Amino acid sequence: MQRFINDPDQVVEDTVKGFVKAHSDILRLADNPRVVVAKNAPVAGKVGVITGGGSGHEPGFMGYTGHNMLDAVAIGELFSSPTAKSFHDAMKEVDGGAGVVCLYGNYAGDNMNVKMAIKLAAKDGIEVATVVANDDVCSAPANEREKRRGVAGEIFMWKIGSAKASAGGSLEEVRAAAQKAIDSCRSIGIGLGPCTLPAVGHPNFQIEPGTMEVGIGHHGEPGVRVEPLKTAAEIAKDMSKIVLDDHNLPAGTEVAVLVSGLGATPLNELYILNDTIESEVTGRGLSVYKTYVGNYFTSLEMVGATLTVFALDDEMKALLDIEANCTMKL
Amino acid sequence: MQRFINDPDQVVEDTVKGFVKAHSDILRLADNPRVVVAKNAPVAGKVGVITGGGSGHEPGFMGYTGHNMLDAVAIGELFSSPTAKSFHDAMKEVDGGAGVVCLYGNYAGDNMNVKMAIKLAAKDGIEVATVVANDDVCSAPANEREKRRGVAGEIFMWKIGSAKASAGGSLEEVRAAAQKAIDSCRSIGIGLGPCTLPAVGHPNFQIEPGTMEVGIGHHGEPGVRVEPLKTAAEIAKDMSKIVLDDHNLPAGTEVAVLVSGLGATPLNELYILNDTIESEVTGRGLSVYKTYVGNYFTSLEMVGATLTVFALDDEMKALLDIEANCTMKL
Repeated sequence: MQRFINDPDQVVEDTVKGFVKAHSDILRLADNPRVVVAKNAPVAGKVGVITGGGSGHEPGFMGYTGHNMLDAVAIGELFSSPTAKSFHDAMKEVDGGAGVVCLYGNYAGDNMNVKMAIKLAAKDGIEVATVVANDDVCSAPANEREKRRGVAGEIFMWKIGSAKASAGGSLEEVRAAAQKAIDSCRSIGIGLGPCTLPAVGHPNFQIEPGTMEVGIGHHGEPGVRVEPLKTAAEIAKDMSKIVLDDHNLPAGTEVAVLVSGLGATPLNELYILNDTIESEVTGRGLSVYKTYVGNYFTSLEMVGATLTVFALDDEMKALLDIEANCTMKL
Repeated sequence: MQRFINDPDQVVEDTVKGFVKAHSDILRLADNPRVVVAKNAPVAGKVGVITGGGSGHEPGFMGYTGHNMLDAVAIGELFSSPTAKSFHDAMKEVDGGAGVVCLYGNYAGDNMNVKMAIKLAAKDGIEVATVVANDDVCSAPANEREKRRGVAGEIFMWKIGSAKASAGGSLEEVRAAAQKAIDSCRSIGIGLGPCTLPAVGHPNFQIEPGTMEVGIGHHGEPGVRVEPLKTAAEIAKDMSKIVLDDHNLPAGTEVAVLVSGLGATPLNELYILNDTIESEVTGRGLSVYKTYVGNYFTSLEMVGATLTVFALDDEMKALLDIEANCTMKL
């Protein structure tokens, strides 16, 4: 492995330590060293907004902690859910008396641990609402959307929910805004190269050179098909078609577009994809309100990219425009 | 090549198109399709600030165009200098009557083409001052600093020069501030894996598995030594020692730290490096004013990282704190 690591079993520990040192102007570590908390949290009377997820997706999840963004994030081991205790500790850290919303992705471990954490929080008198992200189009058919995974669309769910909370929304209003955001997101991933969990030492799945995996998940979950590697323009057209067919938006809709690298994809290639994606989006009569291109939600050193299209209305645009201070430009 | 590209000879063309589409809120393409210009440029009475450099380093160089940042950027082919015409066109685009400062890196092609562009600009009545970045410690000894290459420290040179221009500085004041910034920067690169120019189709240099190249340049230029791959902590200590020994800063100095990936390094590993780097910096009695971790200045899909330490005083801190709107959080 040509990697910058120390003990393979200490990757998360070392990452979190370096992360907290880098961003102490924005956030702090909780007493629980698997929970980071925005510097100004908790805010009395404000709904607390948290998420949590496995490590290896940096800057997801903890990089989205900050002012007008997430109040706290529970941190799991590599590609593993945070513990129920960490979710619970995150809830306690951000409780300002108005309840807490937990905005997380649809994975078995997260579902189980969040539910346990909610029971523990109830004993503390903290009311918790949840939204479960399921924006990954290829992980289940449209009529089984509740089975779909959450991927990069989660960033918009966090951004909108956090903005609504900062704007003074009630627990139900924050939950509803975040739910609307993720309901308005569709995503797809394309994998060109696998990744390696350092403690395992070899890739946890394979992508043969000259091929690509269409609809891949953030942990190498198989997609809908393996195909010969195409040109960037052809791939971008495929990604756009899969997302936009599922979305089925009326002409005239404004959208936000997020093209994220999966960790080892050079930024220039994401821009090459974006060139065609934006043409495909506008070719359907949609208009692009904002575009985000970069390593927003990754999978260690996986080579690949995800496309997320977020359908906007005036409410979503107003919330999207509320300035946030986290580690990423949003 | 497991890459998102179309025609290997059109990589820069396609990248720039997708880039301008993504960031039309911040910048525009000039009539010359190898020049991007900040949306509000030129500003009458303000010193124009430009740079230019080869492609493949995204978000360097064009990603630093924007309000209170660079007014324009000349774009070269992959790892090649922009043409003299592109530098000249960038100068013309940003001239607000107060002169233009060109802040660029110390490479033969850039030196030659900037000089030619200055002659052309003189005929237009545009006065141009320059600062040449030479922050890469391992590219020449300290007593031959004029031979050193410019690397990620250029970001601080751009940020400080642009901030000084926005604050109303004269041409000489902007030049002096940018010169002071780069004089206060020292950088080093570590390479763990090479990169491939798409039109060539194979890596343009080799790094054997199990080894690393200490002091590598942004185009694979050889460093000071090839070593067996060490742990992240050992590498971070080596990087810090090389940079800080050369810097030789008095205890109590405040610094900005930039840990940049070279394109295919996962973000979590940069944080692992930062954990030790910040300990090494503070261990010398220095204090960290701001830290930047991410893919700030890359080399296609090279695996590796750079460390830049920027020594601050009150003037540099005040300019660093002027808010900028470009594609990166700065």
